[in-house]
Amino acid sequence: MSTEPHLPPDRAAALPLPPMAFNAWGDPALATTLSDDVKGLLASLLEISGEPLTPPTQAEVRLVPSRLSGVHLKALAAIVGEEHISVRDGDRLPRAGGKSTPDLLRRRSTGEQEAPDAVVVPGTEEEVAQLLELCSRQRIAVVPFGGGTSVVGGLDPLRGEFAAVLSLDLRRFDALVSLDEVSGEAVLGAGLTGPRAEELLAERGFELGHYPQSFRYATIGGFAATRSSGQDSAGYGRFDDMVRGLRVITPAGVLDLGRGPASAAGPDLRQLFLGSEGVLGVITEVRVRVHPVPAVKRYEAWTFPDFATGAAALRAVRQQGTGPTVLRLSDETETAVNLAMTAKIGAPQAVSGCLAVTVFEGTDELTAARHELTRAVLRAHGGTSLGEEPARAWEHGRFSAPYLRDALLDHGALCETLETATSWAGLDRLKTAVTGALTEALGATGSTALVMCHISHVYETGASLYFTVVGAQRGDALAQWQQAKRAAGDAIMANAGTITHHHAVGADHRPWMGQEIGDLGAAVLRAVKGAVDPAGILNPGKLIP
Amino acid sequence: MSTEPHLPPDRAAALPLPPMAFNAWGDPALATTLSDDVKGLLASLLEISGEPLTPPTQAEVRLVPSRLSGVHLKALAAIVGEEHISVRDGDRLPRAGGKSTPDLLRRRSTGEQEAPDAVVVPGTEEEVAQLLELCSRQRIAVVPFGGGTSVVGGLDPLRGEFAAVLSLDLRRFDALVSLDEVSGEAVLGAGLTGPRAEELLAERGFELGHYPQSFRYATIGGFAATRSSGQDSAGYGRFDDMVRGLRVITPAGVLDLGRGPASAAGPDLRQLFLGSEGVLGVITEVRVRVHPVPAVKRYEAWTFPDFATGAAALRAVRQQGTGPTVLRLSDETETAVNLAMTAKIGAPQAVSGCLAVTVFEGTDELTAARHELTRAVLRAHGGTSLGEEPARAWEHGRFSAPYLRDALLDHGALCETLETATSWAGLDRLKTAVTGALTEALGATGSTALVMCHISHVYETGASLYFTVVGAQRGDALAQWQQAKRAAGDAIMANAGTITHHHAVGADHRPWMGQEIGDLGAAVLRAVKGAVDPAGILNPGKLIP
Repeated sequence: MSTEPHLPPDRAAALPLPPMAFNAWGDPALATTLSDDVKGLLASLLEISGEPLTPPTQAEVRLVPSRLSGVHLKALAAIVGEEHISVRDGDRLPRAGGKSTPDLLRRRSTGEQEAPDAVVVPGTEEEVAQLLELCSRQRIAVVPFGGGTSVVGGLDPLRGEFAAVLSLDLRRFDALVSLDEVSGEAVLGAGLTGPRAEELLAERGFELGHYPQSFRYATIGGFAATRSSGQDSAGYGRFDDMVRGLRVITPAGVLDLGRGPASAAGPDLRQLFLGSEGVLGVITEVRVRVHPVPAVKRYEAWTFPDFATGAAALRAVRQQGTGPTVLRLSDETETAVNLAMTAKIGAPQAVSGCLAVTVFEGTDELTAARHELTRAVLRAHGGTSLGEEPARAWEHGRFSAPYLRDALLDHGALCETLETATSWAGLDRLKTAVTGALTEALGATGSTALVMCHISHVYETGASLYFTVVGAQRGDALAQWQQAKRAAGDAIMANAGTITHHHAVGADHRPWMGQEIGDLGAAVLRAVKGAVDPAGILNPGKLIP
Repeated sequence: MSTEPHLPPDRAAALPLPPMAFNAWGDPALATTLSDDVKGLLASLLEISGEPLTPPTQAEVRLVPSRLSGVHLKALAAIVGEEHISVRDGDRLPRAGGKSTPDLLRRRSTGEQEAPDAVVVPGTEEEVAQLLELCSRQRIAVVPFGGGTSVVGGLDPLRGEFAAVLSLDLRRFDALVSLDEVSGEAVLGAGLTGPRAEELLAERGFELGHYPQSFRYATIGGFAATRSSGQDSAGYGRFDDMVRGLRVITPAGVLDLGRGPASAAGPDLRQLFLGSEGVLGVITEVRVRVHPVPAVKRYEAWTFPDFATGAAALRAVRQQGTGPTVLRLSDETETAVNLAMTAKIGAPQAVSGCLAVTVFEGTDELTAARHELTRAVLRAHGGTSLGEEPARAWEHGRFSAPYLRDALLDHGALCETLETATSWAGLDRLKTAVTGALTEALGATGSTALVMCHISHVYETGASLYFTVVGAQRGDALAQWQQAKRAAGDAIMANAGTITHHHAVGADHRPWMGQEIGDLGAAVLRAVKGAVDPAGILNPGKLIP
């Protein structure tokens, strides 16, 4: 292939852009600065002081030039149209990765950066099928792109054995395809963002109710491809629970999966493509369960004397099935820095002990009944009510925490999150092990570690653990974090956790997948991959070990 | 291979037997005769009268001789021990098939009958692995056998491309392996029957809560392999909902699947082996969610003026999430013959309109709350309470209906059930289409058809439809039913139903699997099969089209 692209590289963008900053979370207009409280915390806990760093601007970033030849670009443009393909740096850079701390550190580096060799934005399933056919034939790798919110390296522009890699942006699959109001089922285009999907459903009186922290930018197809789980999972389930059907375009053909609300017609093939992370096909439409917009919402926050007591209370609520929509518990450290109430982070401790949040939704009568039943269980298990306010404060800031991470990175702090899940009986051991591993690994790099944790997804048999880690950057921050991440991942696997509860696998968790599913499990995934993507062009280097 | 088996064939059995009659449902001691009411119904509706037929006794049945050579039998016996292998007719006949009407008609025929060439009863996973290795090498097909309750030809002793077929009986995997009382998780041996599993759990104060009609005989492994759904599914979910982990022995190695209560670590491979029907591996252990034995149980029956009104009421209950454990609705015809109250079948109509049954379980407080909320919804949707009695009568006879089928077959009636599921919006169309197809197809064979239907599994987006069909045997009853079944299956596929909601695929539903999952879906299943069972010995001719 020639290194002379057909379309000239350019700092400006030709395509509609993902709305997020290329080197930070979210809308640049919502970027935050550190409060004096947080600065004080950094100075006293982590010995971080001084002025913020200034990362390279978009104009200063140097990208590896596109490796696609003019012939290939012409063939691609013939499929999607000239206006839906670009090799400009301004289009490639925002699709060069996701939003993990390693992603942001790479985007802020001064060296030459990897990026997809072109961005294509197909508008129909037929165009997707033709793109996959062409790329299989011409041996070009393809990374499907939704909202760009991956925090596990799911969007790394890896070429694998191929000479070039495309970013395939699904944004034009943005329709509410159909809504069955009787059955409570909607068919949503994979490229719809969370807010746009909810907006279209709300016009008809319905709601999906999937609110992960990535909600504002992530897409329906991304939720499905990564087994996303939202903050209302206690009430509405994980995204995979919501899915009734999928349309998937693969190099070997189209899959239209899911007949009936439940079936015994053999293995559930939807469950192969949920969590397939662009490795097995391109999801174009998702049929989901929806519910009427709730008439009433009730809030109540609680405090527990310690995490174990609080966890036992959450367990009792979930196992008895008393029905809150939101149910979460911060540990002592997270409560101490007010992490669950973003506006107050670093301010004097607002709630003592461990903060728990409950929210209830539905009809007036049902919400009242659920609230009363849950309240009785929480009280019986040592909880003290704090009233509505802290729960509303949590909800108000529920999508804001990632902005704070950007400001922390600017100030020389290291900040990242990771998550797992295990059985109720094993929760304490897993939490202790991961906290210890992170503390020890960061300690070895010369940094104190502030490790905070919460439970945000509860199941009858267990719960998730979500860790937020803050340290001081020492030397090569990327290498420093990778060392800590390796220790945490090993601790998770050694203590009966899953390597990821809702962030997915991508490139970053792939080293643990052999342990997660076993060698034969990996062989099964490779066999499926061989059947649907014989040339192996789809998202190489991700998910499958 | 020689036709001279190493062990002499014998009418007597050498192995512990499945507890069911070889040619009828269930315990021979519980066999029923037809009441005068039912006989009257048969005479007036179907013009059936006269004396019962007398099918061949076990001693009179002629089996195809075992095709296993002495060399193979010696090798098999060396793995499991001489006392755990048999080629006697008395052992082969009870494992020659399941309990569908076609199975029973075949077992009652006078010609030579197919049967597995030997029965092996391994006691450890290592023995299972060695058996699969030997059979792969020697090209012997293997049919895993649990409780023998398949009604879809899942146990047909098909040899496929192989010269012989083994029945691999899992009965020795009969332990409660472990119970985590905090997390509510139990590891159950695949060969445990429903009652034995519940007995072992009850000793520790726990319950699984899976009560399909096959409960008394079917096994934990069978529930998993067929995606069984029990009568308490509104409260405790389908069996696949209950499963947290699986151990599966395949010719290519062992799979130990399921980390954490939920995970985003890629495709959910458990969902490939749930519903795998012995085609992808031998399930030896299942980790399931369990709950404390409920303190309280409440019953209430209802009547609705018609099926559509009742279905809308059930939909409202499910979509609002008011929480009954059992929720079911009989249509007008089923209600008219008292089918839901087995003891009164054929007697004067006990309930007018359409009978609905609700049962609630849990703590005193929670049960009361759920009952009140559900009652309000049912009343608002046109229901009239009938009090406790009809609901208790349903529960009392919940496992008895299949015995009646045997008596009907003896009297020259044709009786069978089939089931499907679809969205709430499509339920009426599907019910009408299937009823029409059955009536027309049986009509073409010269028989009136009595087609009854109920909803017994409800979901937020749809429900199951369970049909019971009674006609008169005319000529070749097996061919007659197959004609009706073909018409019903085609009607299901043409009206957005799934070919099976909880009976599974086996040999009987296999012709529709291409439509159910598409050609590429079938190719994916074949690829998985190739990875775990390269010789193709596992249950040939089932599930995968």
